[in-house]
Amino acid sequence: MDCIGVVDTTFARVDMASEAIDEIKSLAPDVEVRRVTVPGIKNTIWGAKKLAREGCTALLVLGWVGPSLTDKLSYLAMSIGLIELQIHMDVLILDVTVHEDEASDERELKTIAVDRARKHARNLVALMRGDLSKFAGMGLRQGRPDVGPII
Amino acid sequence: MDCIGVVDTTFARVDMASEAIDEIKSLAPDVEVRRVTVPGIKNTIWGAKKLAREGCTALLVLGWVGPSLTDKLSYLAMSIGLIELQIHMDVLILDVTVHEDEASDERELKTIAVDRARKHARNLVALMRGDLSKFAGMGLRQGRPDVGPII
Amino acid sequence: MDCIGVVDTTFARVDMASEAIDEIKSLAPDVEVRRVTVPGIKNTIWGAKKLAREGCTALLVLGWVGPSLTDKLSYLAMSIGLIELQIHMDVLILDVTVHEDEASDERELKTIAVDRARKHARNLVALMRGDLSKFAGMGLRQGRPDVGPII
Amino acid sequence: MDCIGVVDTTFARVDMASEAIDEIKSLAPDVEVRRVTVPGIKNTIWGAKKLAREGCTALLVLGWVGPSLTDKLSYLAMSIGLIELQIHMDVLILDVTVHEDEASDERELKTIAVDRARKHARNLVALMRGDLSKFAGMGLRQGRPDVGPII
Amino acid sequence: MDCIGVVDTTFARVDMASEAIDEIKSLAPDVEVRRVTVPGIKNTIWGAKKLAREGCTALLVLGWVGPSLTDKLSYLAMSIGLIELQIHMDVLILDVTVHEDEASDERELKTIAVDRARKHARNLVALMRGDLSKFAGMGLRQGRPDVGPII
Repeated sequence: MDCIGVVDTTFARVDMASEAIDEIKSLAPDVEVRRVTVPGIKNTIWGAKKLAREGCTALLVLGWVGPSLTDKLSYLAMSIGLIELQIHMDVLILDVTVHEDEASDERELKTIAVDRARKHARNLVALMRGDLSKFAGMGLRQGRPDVGPII
Repeated sequence: MDCIGVVDTTFARVDMASEAIDEIKSLAPDVEVRRVTVPGIKNTIWGAKKLAREGCTALLVLGWVGPSLTDKLSYLAMSIGLIELQIHMDVLILDVTVHEDEASDERELKTIAVDRARKHARNLVALMRGDLSKFAGMGLRQGRPDVGPII
Repeated sequence: MDCIGVVDTTFARVDMASEAIDEIKSLAPDVEVRRVTVPGIKNTIWGAKKLAREGCTALLVLGWVGPSLTDKLSYLAMSIGLIELQIHMDVLILDVTVHEDEASDERELKTIAVDRARKHARNLVALMRGDLSKFAGMGLRQGRPDVGPII
Repeated sequence: MDCIGVVDTTFARVDMASEAIDEIKSLAPDVEVRRVTVPGIKNTIWGAKKLAREGCTALLVLGWVGPSLTDKLSYLAMSIGLIELQIHMDVLILDVTVHEDEASDERELKTIAVDRARKHARNLVALMRGDLSKFAGMGLRQGRPDVGPII
Repeated sequence: MDCIGVVDTTFARVDMASEAIDEIKSLAPDVEVRRVTVPGIKNTIWGAKKLAREGCTALLVLGWVGPSLTDKLSYLAMSIGLIELQIHMDVLILDVTVHEDEASDERELKTIAVDRARKHARNLVALMRGDLSKFAGMGLRQGRPDVGPII
C-alpha cells in the first residue's frame, strides 16, 4: 500500500476531500494520502492518473454534478473515463458523486456529500484490506441511510 | 477452466451471489469459485479485472441499478466497461443486472433477482462448455418466464 | 477468407442466424461458417472476439433489443463494443439488430428480422469481395423495403 | 499526402461522396482519392480503418442518420468510434452527418446533404494544408448558411 | 513546460481562443502557445493530439455546442474522446464548452464564452504550476459568478 490518492474539484460546493481524508487518517493512520484538486468532474481522470503514476494504488474521486442534461452527460463521460483508467492501470478507484438534483435544499445536499464521502472512504480502506463480501446484497447506501436487504 | 469469478455489490438488496454460487456448485462441483464484493455497479469492473488476473476465465457480475437517470447512465458506463475488459483480457463476463424500475414491489424484485442470477449462472457454465446454439432465437428470459420464439 | 463468423442470442425471438447462414451458403458455398450463440446482445462482443481469434475475418452479429430505455442503453454499449473490437482486431463486423419497438405485432417483427438478417448477410459477402459503392446513397434498407435516393 | 479516403453508406439517400470527391478533385487535383461504401453509419469505422491502413491520412466519412432514438444512439456510437480511431491511428477524420429530423422535406434534406458534403470536403483539404484559424469563432455552418460571429 | 496548446473551432460564434491566449500570455509570458482550429467539437480530439505530439503538455480545448439532442450527443462523444486522449498520452486537457441552450440571448452567450475561456485559461496555468486545492469545494464557476461553498 503505497499511498491513497484523493481527487476533488473546485466546482463542488462542499469540501468532501477533507471529510474523506479525515476518515482515511482515522482508519489507516500510517498510509500516506495525496490530493489533487481539478476544476470539474471531467478533469478528475487526469488527476487520478497523475496520482496513480506517483504510486497511489487506491483512489477516491469526489465529484459534484449539476442538474442539467449536459451535466448528466459529463457525469457519464467521467464514469466511463474512470473505468477505462482502471482497465489500463492497476488501481482501484471509488468515485463519490453528489448530484444537485437529488436534494431539495442546500443543507440536505451538504449532509449527503459529507456522509457519502466518509462512507466511501471507509469502503476504500475496506477494499484495500480485503473485500466487502460480508455486506453483499445488504442494500447499503452512501449519502442516505441504508435501505437494507429485501427479506 | 481455472476458476469462475463472481462479483457483486453492497448496494444490491438481494444476495444474488450466493444464489449464483449455489447454482454453479451444483452444475460444476469441481470448479473453484472466487468472489469479490464491491460497493456499486461501476466498481464491478475493478472486481472483475482483479479476479481475471487471479486466473478466473469466466465471470458473473451481479449488479443492482436504481431507477433514476443517473442510475441508468451508471448502468451504461458499467456495461461499456465490462465489454472493454473482455476486449482487453481473455475472459467471458456475463452481467446480471436488476433494475428497480422493472417491478412494482419488493417481493417481485427479489423473485426476479434470484431467477436471473441462477439462470445466468447456468448460462455461464453452458458457455464455458460450448455454446448455447440449441437455444438460439428461442426467446429465453432471465428474471421472467421465457417468451419463446415467434412462430 | 478463412471463415465467416455468426453470433446470435438466446434472447432473440427469431432464429436469424439460420436465415443468415442459409443466405451465406448460397452466395459463398466454399466459405466455412462458424456460429456462437450467447445469452444477450451485450455478450456478442465476447462471441465475436472468440470467432475472430479462431480465424474468422468477417462476422455477422445478430441481436434482438427490447423496448425499454435500459434496452436502448444496452444496444448502445453493444454498438460501441463491436466498433471497439473492429479497431483492435482486423475484422469486419456487421451487426443486425431488431428492436421490439419498431413493429406493432409479432408477425411484422419476424418479417423484419428475416429480411434484415438475409440482406445483411448479402452485404457481408459483398464487402468481403469488394465494396458496395454501386449502391452508395441509394437509400437501401434492411428489414424494410428500400426507400431509394432523393431525386 | 498519400491519399484522401472517402467512406459513405448505402443507407444514405443522397450520393454525398460524389459531391465531396468532385470538390476534392477541384481543390487538390493531384491527390489520389479512395472510396469505400458500407451499409450504415456504424460500419464507417471499419471502412475508415481500411483506407487508413492503405495509406490515406485524411478521411471524409459521410453518414445518414434516421430520426429515432435508436438512430441517435447509433450516431453516438459512430462518433465515439471515429474519435477512437483517430486516437489509435495517425489520421484526420471529418465526419459529415445528415439527420433526417433536421429538415421538413426531402428537397431540403438533399440541399443540406450536398452543401455539407462539399463544405467539409473543403475543410478537409484546408486542414491538410494548415489549419482553419482564420475562420475561428466565425460561426461557420455546413448544410446551412453561416450564422457568423456574435458581435 | 514545452508549450501550451489551444484548440478551437470555426463553428463557435465567439473567438474564445484569442481571449484564452491573451490570458495565458499575461500569466505565463515565457510559455510558447500553439493553436489549431478545426471545424467542430468532434474534431478537437484530432487537434489536441496533433499539438500533444508537437510537445504541448497542457491543452485548452474550446468548444461550442448547439441546442439539439444530436449536439448533446456530439458533446458526449467529444468529452469521452478528450478523456481517452489523456489516458493514452501524458497531457492535461481542460475543455471549455459553451452550450447554446444555457443563455436566452446572444449577448449573454458571448459574456459566458469570454468569462469561461479566460477562467479556464487561469485554471490551466494554475494546474501546470501545482494544483487548485486551495479552492477545493469552493463552488467556483466559469462563465457565471461563483456560487460559493454551502456553509
